[in-house]
Amino acid sequence: MAASTLDVVGIGNAIVDVIASAEDDFLVRHGMVKGSMMLIDEARAEAIYNAMGSAVVSSGGSAGNTIAGIASLGGKTGFIGKVRDDALGREFRHDIVAAGAVFPTAPAGDGPATARCLILVTPDSQRTMNTFLGACVNLTTDDIDADLIASAQFTYLEGYLYDQPAAQEAFHKASEIAHEAGRKVALSLSDPFCVQRHRSAFMKLVDHHVDMLFCNEGEVLALFETENLQRAIVRLRSMTELAAITCGAYGSIVLSADETIEIPAAPATQVVDTTGAGDLYAAGFLFGLTRKAQLAQCGRFGSLAASEIISHFGARPQTPLHELIGVSSAG
Amino acid sequence: MAASTLDVVGIGNAIVDVIASAEDDFLVRHGMVKGSMMLIDEARAEAIYNAMGSAVVSSGGSAGNTIAGIASLGGKTGFIGKVRDDALGREFRHDIVAAGAVFPTAPAGDGPATARCLILVTPDSQRTMNTFLGACVNLTTDDIDADLIASAQFTYLEGYLYDQPAAQEAFHKASEIAHEAGRKVALSLSDPFCVQRHRSAFMKLVDHHVDMLFCNEGEVLALFETENLQRAIVRLRSMTELAAITCGAYGSIVLSADETIEIPAAPATQVVDTTGAGDLYAAGFLFGLTRKAQLAQCGRFGSLAASEIISHFGARPQTPLHELIGVSSAG
Repeated sequence: MAASTLDVVGIGNAIVDVIASAEDDFLVRHGMVKGSMMLIDEARAEAIYNAMGSAVVSSGGSAGNTIAGIASLGGKTGFIGKVRDDALGREFRHDIVAAGAVFPTAPAGDGPATARCLILVTPDSQRTMNTFLGACVNLTTDDIDADLIASAQFTYLEGYLYDQPAAQEAFHKASEIAHEAGRKVALSLSDPFCVQRHRSAFMKLVDHHVDMLFCNEGEVLALFETENLQRAIVRLRSMTELAAITCGAYGSIVLSADETIEIPAAPATQVVDTTGAGDLYAAGFLFGLTRKAQLAQCGRFGSLAASEIISHFGARPQTPLHELIGVSSAG
Repeated sequence: MAASTLDVVGIGNAIVDVIASAEDDFLVRHGMVKGSMMLIDEARAEAIYNAMGSAVVSSGGSAGNTIAGIASLGGKTGFIGKVRDDALGREFRHDIVAAGAVFPTAPAGDGPATARCLILVTPDSQRTMNTFLGACVNLTTDDIDADLIASAQFTYLEGYLYDQPAAQEAFHKASEIAHEAGRKVALSLSDPFCVQRHRSAFMKLVDHHVDMLFCNEGEVLALFETENLQRAIVRLRSMTELAAITCGAYGSIVLSADETIEIPAAPATQVVDTTGAGDLYAAGFLFGLTRKAQLAQCGRFGSLAASEIISHFGARPQTPLHELIGVSSAG
């Protein structure tokens, strides 16, 4: 196995977030389920945008956020995901490259516009997401850069990719390449409804192809169709060598073959918008793993990165995370 | 004089802000003067964008920020400014309309792209602005909606308009219409360098056409070419019936014919990005005037609105300002 030149390559939906404050009754009026992600078509995206308040636009996408976070911590990263050659697509590219990631995926020259996620942040700081996948549906196995993946310690996949058949294939090809190169594969379950949509496929993946799983309580309960977290933990431990379950303000639980570690959440200066909390937890954790940190330390890095992201609108870091965790950006 | 149907109409450059964190040496390397606004061409805008970090995009423009702020306080507002019919132009329109303002100005169908301001926020929370005026240069007297202006208690003009000859004419036409309708005209001096560029024109304006002036210390010192604030205050009082001088963290000084009132800054939960502090001070102050509040109360509304805007990236309010100042949005 050649020495790795990258720490983490992420594969995910290349999405630009459009974020506005909203009252709870806005969600009710527009048939949204608070805290969840709903897939919408372009017409509904237009209708919601026209109805929502003054917005802040910021690059997003679950794996994209994680990769930008790892780069901000000082890690070497790459990203694979599909944008269109339009204004939002250029913005996504600028931001992930400016964060320090390699981004080899060619933009689509035609077809649907760059994906956007219309995010409503309610006064309780919860986010409710409406995603028009747009150009993401054109991500295929051809976009899976084998050399890039083989060069990275971890390949990180977001569960949301399962919402598009072509991206599922890309997902499988990437994890095969990674394992053949002796690398590790990490997966985020993304969303409880996403887990419900693809439950049996995710079960197989976690059992056979995933070395580390990221999820939250709602997702792991959905995966095992139980309301008992302890039962879910027992089953999860039997299926994967390493997992981290995030529990919002309560922190996270890290599971390895012989350890269960509870990690408190890091104190946040203020909680403004919880978008990206899970993505940045994964960033901190994976960065720790690539630096051979103890699991408890990986979890603390995750908590710290998440605490920065929830202190402002948007799911990309606004302060250099390597300063927050007190490591040199040279890693 | 007919009853006013609007509180404030703003006329200004219609700009979208592109905001990123930067270290001080980034400013040095790119020849920027910290805290100031520099006009740049499209090629330099591209070069700076390519060099700057991951960005947040949010509607801006000095008068646009003020108008959005007044709307958020519960005031009835309108805005006049020129965008192109491109993606950023649609974003600007969405945001000012979503804030609650009337925005009758037709977008340009050709010519330069929608204006953008590349804002670098340094670790001391200061902002340094680089503005490509783009479509703003196409604002002319034809865009000055006489009925809109005659219907508003205040017409609010930003000094930055003086950087384009056609906009200067629009500026004069608007203040004539306002005064003929028995309304008041307010002006913001915008920036010390803008004052230096147009000093004698601004002197005449303030002396003969402006009922209320907003400025900061640096701007009023530049206007009277003095380093003595007391001397500047004496001269300013002789020229205009009402003025407010903002002094950053120290608060503001309000000058009327027979009063000098010192207003403390409102405590900010955190200071992240000072972009828009002056614009939102003007929003609070003008809103107070339209509600016949005492001058000290107008100043306090200004301080409160400014304290919200500096607590996050971007110069548009992210929480409803009428809740902050404890007035009903019905006003």
